[in-house]
Amino acid sequence: MAKLNISNPSGFPEFTPAQERIRQQWLTVIREVFEKYGFQPIETPLVEREENLLSKGGNAKEMYVLKRLHDEEGDSSHSGNAFRFDHTVPLALYVARHLNEISFPFKRYAIGPVLRGERAQKFRYRQFDQCDIDIVGSENLAIENDAVCIAVMIEIFERLNIGDFVVRINNRKIIKGLLEVLGIEEKDSKDVFDTLDDLEKIGQEGVEKKLFAQGLRSDQVNTLLSVVNNGLGAIIDKNNNIDEGTAEVLQVEQALISMEVNQDRWVRDLSIIRGLDYYTGTVFETNLIGEGAAKGMSLCSGGRYDDLGETFTGRKTPGVGASIGLTRLLQMLFEAGIMKTESPSHLDFLVLPFTSTEISAALSFAQDLRASGLRVDVYLEDKKIAKKFDYADKIGVEWVAIIGENELKEGKVQLKNMKTGESRTLLRAEVFEALG
Amino acid sequence: MAKLNISNPSGFPEFTPAQERIRQQWLTVIREVFEKYGFQPIETPLVEREENLLSKGGNAKEMYVLKRLHDEEGDSSHSGNAFRFDHTVPLALYVARHLNEISFPFKRYAIGPVLRGERAQKFRYRQFDQCDIDIVGSENLAIENDAVCIAVMIEIFERLNIGDFVVRINNRKIIKGLLEVLGIEEKDSKDVFDTLDDLEKIGQEGVEKKLFAQGLRSDQVNTLLSVVNNGLGAIIDKNNNIDEGTAEVLQVEQALISMEVNQDRWVRDLSIIRGLDYYTGTVFETNLIGEGAAKGMSLCSGGRYDDLGETFTGRKTPGVGASIGLTRLLQMLFEAGIMKTESPSHLDFLVLPFTSTEISAALSFAQDLRASGLRVDVYLEDKKIAKKFDYADKIGVEWVAIIGENELKEGKVQLKNMKTGESRTLLRAEVFEALG
Repeated sequence: MAKLNISNPSGFPEFTPAQERIRQQWLTVIREVFEKYGFQPIETPLVEREENLLSKGGNAKEMYVLKRLHDEEGDSSHSGNAFRFDHTVPLALYVARHLNEISFPFKRYAIGPVLRGERAQKFRYRQFDQCDIDIVGSENLAIENDAVCIAVMIEIFERLNIGDFVVRINNRKIIKGLLEVLGIEEKDSKDVFDTLDDLEKIGQEGVEKKLFAQGLRSDQVNTLLSVVNNGLGAIIDKNNNIDEGTAEVLQVEQALISMEVNQDRWVRDLSIIRGLDYYTGTVFETNLIGEGAAKGMSLCSGGRYDDLGETFTGRKTPGVGASIGLTRLLQMLFEAGIMKTESPSHLDFLVLPFTSTEISAALSFAQDLRASGLRVDVYLEDKKIAKKFDYADKIGVEWVAIIGENELKEGKVQLKNMKTGESRTLLRAEVFEALG
Repeated sequence: MAKLNISNPSGFPEFTPAQERIRQQWLTVIREVFEKYGFQPIETPLVEREENLLSKGGNAKEMYVLKRLHDEEGDSSHSGNAFRFDHTVPLALYVARHLNEISFPFKRYAIGPVLRGERAQKFRYRQFDQCDIDIVGSENLAIENDAVCIAVMIEIFERLNIGDFVVRINNRKIIKGLLEVLGIEEKDSKDVFDTLDDLEKIGQEGVEKKLFAQGLRSDQVNTLLSVVNNGLGAIIDKNNNIDEGTAEVLQVEQALISMEVNQDRWVRDLSIIRGLDYYTGTVFETNLIGEGAAKGMSLCSGGRYDDLGETFTGRKTPGVGASIGLTRLLQMLFEAGIMKTESPSHLDFLVLPFTSTEISAALSFAQDLRASGLRVDVYLEDKKIAKKFDYADKIGVEWVAIIGENELKEGKVQLKNMKTGESRTLLRAEVFEALG
């Protein structure tokens, strides 16, 4: 028989116990902050109808379809469906399905895996967890909601304590208005947006070159880059979009100040564009400020969209949201050494019966320890005592409780600290007194 | 344009906020108990190599493969992979991948969705969450580990407080030995196991009929059914397997007693077979005892297998595990009305600015409430105050805090209890004193 290839499929990451414990701690913090700000959880399926996913910007090339290994002829109940590539289209469908039960504005969060059939490369995954919040309005949605999303993200990353970061805030309307003022045609604006969005990746010169190649004149290129780098100062002819966008940014900033959000954590930055088509107003990105591998690492991003899914809901449902790309972020933090995975042991106590005679007493004592809220395991295998200590050593548990012949007879346990070597023999009841 | 079908793909369930909050509460309890008994979390991908899934009992008919909507010719990096249908094969692969880092026995838990392309029907899903614990040994694994898995499940369902239940425990070796004593050939034993496993579904007569059809003599059928219903009393010729199986059940029971597990919660029951091929010793099923829709509802099941994945690990790795089929169980409990989804509001407070003039004060006050650990939302939309109260009513929040012109001027808020109608106006600082 040919040897099986047991490695992970490319682009599908796994989390070891030490990593997964950190991931769970993060999820707890993320959920807590989401709920503190009034977001409610929903869980939508991994799979939606292909036509619905495609109708809202799904990239057919990256979409995984639902297909069985041996699909029977004419069995259509499995086909025509595909895996979600984000939480936004599923949200639009959820809102459409529950339009009459939902009280708007609807604040929901969604946490879970999405799938994209991208080319696998380092830190780019085909399955990854996204943690999304969105606020969906009916017909209208107050601009202060945008600030709420930003405040939530700032609180999360402050609590996660991974170093200095800053949320850079812009408004698409400003850039849209600017292109209008500069006489750049609507049909070219998507390309210009995309090019400006690449500023950090390809630098000033790269952007200049690309904008020229896109047919812009040098006065247009110069003004664009001047604004993106230094603000609107150089623009004399403002228009409606610029005015509206500027007023919205001010309102978002005012709301952040009202919420007493640390002002070191956010800044206005006209170079923030965001790649996605559907943003229409506020856009923001969050990056680590740190040094080395951490520098500039993206933490989350989001923005305002005027239309969540009118095709599904038959109603204007504007929204604003933010998303954390959890899998990628954690794997980058592990690799950069910012998140240490040598965490304390998963156990508070390991109970070691000296021989199999003491297993029953060990099980009973462990259960009492658990009743005091401790995480406890019993080493049950029939091995020499040295092997049992080896195991305790390897799993890094600090405290072991040994029950041998004498301890059993006297209703005692020997407690040993694996780090200091210190050891004392106590009555079982005394252990619980000592634990308080 | 043809109207889009926005319904869920068949067999792919969703959870509304009220349901999802309960699901999250369950997951918190499940995780806590798993960790209390020393199980560590791992997260494996949704997708594994087809050949690996098929080599360990994967049903090709039910397996969903990884395939893009537009797969390019010759692009093999996406194909050859398929979605996991349980957490057991991924565990075997995980153990094989990390053989040299793992300290055995390895106690891991895994929680997350699995996919099976079954015929969709009520309470049978194509995507569903499984919550699994397994203990994997190297070469050997003490029988008391089986009791630990049972104790974990009993503690979880006691904490979830969904009514009386019982874990029914058997050992496959007893039934295997019984077939040997009765002269039923090895090659027929799988069919006989499957038939006995159907006892609850098709009843005594149904089983009798099927066993006759499978070629058993009436003395064989009678003895089998007598044992399954009344125990081993009628069997005079015991053999090795019967003796071993009986001794193992006794050891499991002794360990449960040592762990002081409530003896009303478990019972020996020779009719428990478990459908799956790979169980070799202890098997158990857990059912609600209750009345009506709840009666007999399956909560979890598990057992001991001698070989987890020798084909992957090249080493004998016996294991024991248990699994909760969370999605199905929750949906059944919702439908049976055992789990109420009319839970309290997701908010402790809703802050209502009377007009947009008070939005800033409302945002600031809400932030102070959040700092005291409360879940708080601000109604930000520009609506008449009656609409704002409508919203508060609909979402079921008990407390609203209103800030109008006077409150703003005097640094006060009006607190109103939406259930009692009671209302009082306090200084902001007084609210926090009242909250303690």
